[in-house]
Amino acid sequence: MQISELARRADLPVATVKYYLREGLVPQGELTGATRARYDEDHLARLRLVRALTGPGGLSVAAAREVLAAVDAPAGSVHEALGAAHRALPPPSGDAPPDVAEARAHLERWGWRVAPDSPALHTLAGALQALRAAGFPASEDLLDRYARAAGEIGRQDVADVPSDSVAEAVRFVVVNTVLLEPVLLALRRLAQEDGSGRRFTGGAG
Amino acid sequence: MQISELARRADLPVATVKYYLREGLVPQGELTGATRARYDEDHLARLRLVRALTGPGGLSVAAAREVLAAVDAPAGSVHEALGAAHRALPPPSGDAPPDVAEARAHLERWGWRVAPDSPALHTLAGALQALRAAGFPASEDLLDRYARAAGEIGRQDVADVPSDSVAEAVRFVVVNTVLLEPVLLALRRLAQEDGSGRRFTGGAG
Repeated sequence: MQISELARRADLPVATVKYYLREGLVPQGELTGATRARYDEDHLARLRLVRALTGPGGLSVAAAREVLAAVDAPAGSVHEALGAAHRALPPPSGDAPPDVAEARAHLERWGWRVAPDSPALHTLAGALQALRAAGFPASEDLLDRYARAAGEIGRQDVADVPSDSVAEAVRFVVVNTVLLEPVLLALRRLAQEDGSGRRFTGGAG
Repeated sequence: MQISELARRADLPVATVKYYLREGLVPQGELTGATRARYDEDHLARLRLVRALTGPGGLSVAAAREVLAAVDAPAGSVHEALGAAHRALPPPSGDAPPDVAEARAHLERWGWRVAPDSPALHTLAGALQALRAAGFPASEDLLDRYARAAGEIGRQDVADVPSDSVAEAVRFVVVNTVLLEPVLLALRRLAQEDGSGRRFTGGAG
């Protein structure tokens, strides 16, 4: 297909498609003339992935490029590839805290094994520190409850990963990590709203 | 205390404290001279809240100001106040989708009652649409699983809200919404990493 059809099917302006091509987020098409190129279904799939990452996924073009590099060059095993993809994704929050000992102690309590330089470990440590500084330290009970919920979905997320192709596994993990995070946060807020209606208004909503 | 001690106890540079005072995020101290003011524990608590929102919470100064306005002027009931605080918080993701019917149908299935203009409802609808566009539509099973996990923590979050003071309830909800979101996302990624190690490397981590 030509670039106009590619853009239409990806639901993006032609100018945006050209920008992604220039930035190398989407591979060039096959040249069919001096200024014309042909694109196929792989280009369309890639474009939809880029759109998902930079749109609702909230990634910058630079961050998307790093994630896509992990998608394109998956490491040896699925586990290594998932690690590379996770590492390329921006952490849920930016601040790197000085000390991860407390976060690490909780993980040990739950029997979770993660790499010492796992970005999520630093995010967790930073958030725990901020909660304490804000005057609402997270209790062990609260963290256990969050870990139970996150553990249930995280384990099933991994079970859902297609294992026949490393490349497909990485694509799946990237999309699901980026796009199911807003789903999870939105659902928590909606559950809070529902619960607040029930607790504070007697259920009138 | 003087501004230097206030800054030291909040673990912030004096210049940052002055900036927050100028921007009205923290109320002015009591003037004790032409260029000197005195600050108390309330100023310190407020400064820590601002630091948590703009640091690990990831809010811009403008977004923090809106959230603090909700904290300062809580509406009538706790439920209304929580709604105002939620509405002031930036949504987990920015895109407003055209259609929330699918998201709404899921909520009805779960028996969750939320306002028709709930920002989280739009976030959910946008993410569901993006997942479909990216070629990994969320199945009903997956959403049920996420809703179960989010429902457990969201309901308990609401049960934890202090109910004796509307102002304190709102402060609690704002801090917990903003700072437990990175905790939840970090825990999900850590659970995925742990699960991936077990599934794809036979548990060697």
